[in-house]
Amino acid sequence: MNRIKLIQTIRDKGSYLCVGLDTDPSKIPDHLHNEEDPVFVFNKAIIDATLPYCVSYKINTAFYEAQGLKGWQSMQRTINYIPDTHFRIADAKRGDIGNTSTQYAIAFLKNLPFDAITVAPYMGEDSVKPFLQFEDKWAIVLGLTSNPGSNDFELKMMAGEKEEKLYERVIRTVSGWGTPDNLMFVVGATQSDEFIHLRNIAPNHFFLVPGVGAQGGSLEDISRKAMNADVGLLVNVSRDIIFASSGEDFAVVAGEKAAAYAGQMKQYL
Amino acid sequence: MNRIKLIQTIRDKGSYLCVGLDTDPSKIPDHLHNEEDPVFVFNKAIIDATLPYCVSYKINTAFYEAQGLKGWQSMQRTINYIPDTHFRIADAKRGDIGNTSTQYAIAFLKNLPFDAITVAPYMGEDSVKPFLQFEDKWAIVLGLTSNPGSNDFELKMMAGEKEEKLYERVIRTVSGWGTPDNLMFVVGATQSDEFIHLRNIAPNHFFLVPGVGAQGGSLEDISRKAMNADVGLLVNVSRDIIFASSGEDFAVVAGEKAAAYAGQMKQYL
Repeated sequence: MNRIKLIQTIRDKGSYLCVGLDTDPSKIPDHLHNEEDPVFVFNKAIIDATLPYCVSYKINTAFYEAQGLKGWQSMQRTINYIPDTHFRIADAKRGDIGNTSTQYAIAFLKNLPFDAITVAPYMGEDSVKPFLQFEDKWAIVLGLTSNPGSNDFELKMMAGEKEEKLYERVIRTVSGWGTPDNLMFVVGATQSDEFIHLRNIAPNHFFLVPGVGAQGGSLEDISRKAMNADVGLLVNVSRDIIFASSGEDFAVVAGEKAAAYAGQMKQYL
Repeated sequence: MNRIKLIQTIRDKGSYLCVGLDTDPSKIPDHLHNEEDPVFVFNKAIIDATLPYCVSYKINTAFYEAQGLKGWQSMQRTINYIPDTHFRIADAKRGDIGNTSTQYAIAFLKNLPFDAITVAPYMGEDSVKPFLQFEDKWAIVLGLTSNPGSNDFELKMMAGEKEEKLYERVIRTVSGWGTPDNLMFVVGATQSDEFIHLRNIAPNHFFLVPGVGAQGGSLEDISRKAMNADVGLLVNVSRDIIFASSGEDFAVVAGEKAAAYAGQMKQYL
């Protein structure tokens, strides 16, 4: 999906919600465990229920890899089920030397119908660029993440001509390797103090924003401080939607939760 | 495998060679493509031929993920085939928020018989610690990598009380999260200027050293400058061994290449 279509979809729906499919088999409702592929059946029901309220889905690859071959199959079924009206993100945090990053890019952006993959920036340019070589596909590079560990390196000051934090250096530098048409940044919703500054250093890029819901970030805060003229935000909610109920009504409740988030977003647009 | 056994294995064999199974299906000999699982048949032959000369194997997960479900199956078959006399590394460069890193750790260190997994440090402590929770299993955290992109962030100076490069800050900080019994660092063989300093900041940790062979790093240089009293090195060679011949003799030639590397290592021990 290209940038124009993404923005149009957000405008049409009045939502910039991304539903995170962090499908931990130990948390899905008991009655699904009789199914041949409980994870896929769960995801399918969640997708059916939330489709009208979100513009994107994010598959957290870790939860699928932890199930081995069966998990990889659930992931394939899930990504193939999500319609291309929605922006499909592989939250995989990949990144390696050039020839290896190329293989990861092929895995997710060519062989599977993902629109985007999250990428770790530590190893620099040749580790990121292979993800920027596919038409209408995106790399979503870690900028400032939502977790406590963001204090260890991301928020530490760099020396040099320009004194800035590591995450600023990363966003400024990586911005030069792509364009707002194929590059987004991960910005944690828990990093409220940095939102305005973040938007200043990357005025035109989309931010993928995890951390709302279970991690405690504020949807209002990120929306008021970091929205740009093209909206420029995809706000992800995972556990707070998909595990809102552990009963037989799990999909209905997930749909209601997604609708509530979308309703809130409409106010900020 | 624990540290004592790893050191003993290295001493017994007179080798600290790790063979990298970066098995790109487009590079394996033509005659194997008739097999049901050419990647596994290739790996099996390489393992059989190199087993006496190396102490470790490193599976580069990207090359398997690029083959989808079939690739994941080849990876499972391969890791299950490598005997536990050898230190088995998942070169996966994972790392995410705590609950997600836990899933990656389960995927590779619990559900598959890997001894170690490579981990990206950008997201900090809660992204690394879940990999340190398994007995006799290891996290191998990126320190200073072998690729050109290491100049973009890893080699840049940090401000603060102690002026140091990002990779130094990473190694010093991450060292506090584990011990030399469950934590190694990735140090690229192409980073010759930094070897002595690297050993000073992490005197007791093992280094996993990629970059010898196709990437041009010197085995002699890393061995003379960064070996410690426990050897403290696992030097990985991938393409230069496994793709040394593309003929029917590929395994024999790979064995000869591995023997040559091991012979060189014996001189430095």
